[in-house]
Amino acid sequence: MGEAQVINGINIDGLFSTVGAIKNNPKIAKFKFRAANKWIDATHSRATISSFYGAGKEDNSREPIIFDLDEPPVLLGENQGANPVEYLLVALSGCLTTSLIAHASARKIKIRKVESRYEGDLDLRGFLGLSEDVKVGFENIRVYFKIDADIPDEQKEELIRMAQKYSPVFNTIVNPVNVSVQLDKN
Amino acid sequence: MGEAQVINGINIDGLFSTVGAIKNNPKIAKFKFRAANKWIDATHSRATISSFYGAGKEDNSREPIIFDLDEPPVLLGENQGANPVEYLLVALSGCLTTSLIAHASARKIKIRKVESRYEGDLDLRGFLGLSEDVKVGFENIRVYFKIDADIPDEQKEELIRMAQKYSPVFNTIVNPVNVSVQLDKN
Repeated sequence: MGEAQVINGINIDGLFSTVGAIKNNPKIAKFKFRAANKWIDATHSRATISSFYGAGKEDNSREPIIFDLDEPPVLLGENQGANPVEYLLVALSGCLTTSLIAHASARKIKIRKVESRYEGDLDLRGFLGLSEDVKVGFENIRVYFKIDADIPDEQKEELIRMAQKYSPVFNTIVNPVNVSVQLDKN
Repeated sequence: MGEAQVINGINIDGLFSTVGAIKNNPKIAKFKFRAANKWIDATHSRATISSFYGAGKEDNSREPIIFDLDEPPVLLGENQGANPVEYLLVALSGCLTTSLIAHASARKIKIRKVESRYEGDLDLRGFLGLSEDVKVGFENIRVYFKIDADIPDEQKEELIRMAQKYSPVFNTIVNPVNVSVQLDKN
């Protein structure tokens, strides 16, 4: 057996063997990701990421990862962390990037560099309940990608389309997703 | 003039004076939040949050905040950070919490503790392009809140409804939002 084929740091043989395993047993494709949050004070809260369920089992192998969330002073916070809508852009940025790289790698397209910028419009009147006509969430999000690779612009644009088509965070944002929120009485 | 009225760490006078200022001049409610991302290797990328536009001006006062995103080994990464869909749950957690606290404070309800848990279902067949019937994004997200305050459960449930109604991240997820993604040719 030869060495594993690695493109853009992605183990392509690993990727295709995952695809094969899922085709044989679609249940292992079902993942559950989790977070916990604790309010600290005012607009400051702290989130923790640790375990997840995937590939048929619980995975508790990671050390907990801690995130502070806060608002800047103009939004009544003390800058103890990025704010929640900024975290959403961070999520989108990582997901589009990974999606682009994974699908480029599967097509054996070598990428030297990928950089991207994100800007989202938010009208505070929604959050403050000052207007029923204003969206509470982001109104629009604009994303700009720079890709350094020996391929024509048309192929870069095709990679960007694939990044969108297959990105879980992108699709969670552009499509409506059910979120149930309940009081835990215990 | 007396001391500022502070409830749950939120300066209520500041909140109401913001509301008044926005009623007089709705333009100052328009914010733009931003992120930048740089691919590092394989499923690892790095996002930066720094400036934003709001209250009628650019705000460059924060030090850049850096986030690493990666996947666990079962998803071909090396655990160099939480993964993008986990960041999305972090974003949701901070936003629902802040929304709950801000709206409780505006109603002068004192809160001692708020904790919440998040779980989202993701079927990898979407990301891998193995099935057209499977959602690429989160299928469902479940949220459970524990609230410690001297109010009956019905009022806690009302706070949870308000948290959802006014949370920008929640509304970005449950409603469809336009995201335009372009190749930056410069």
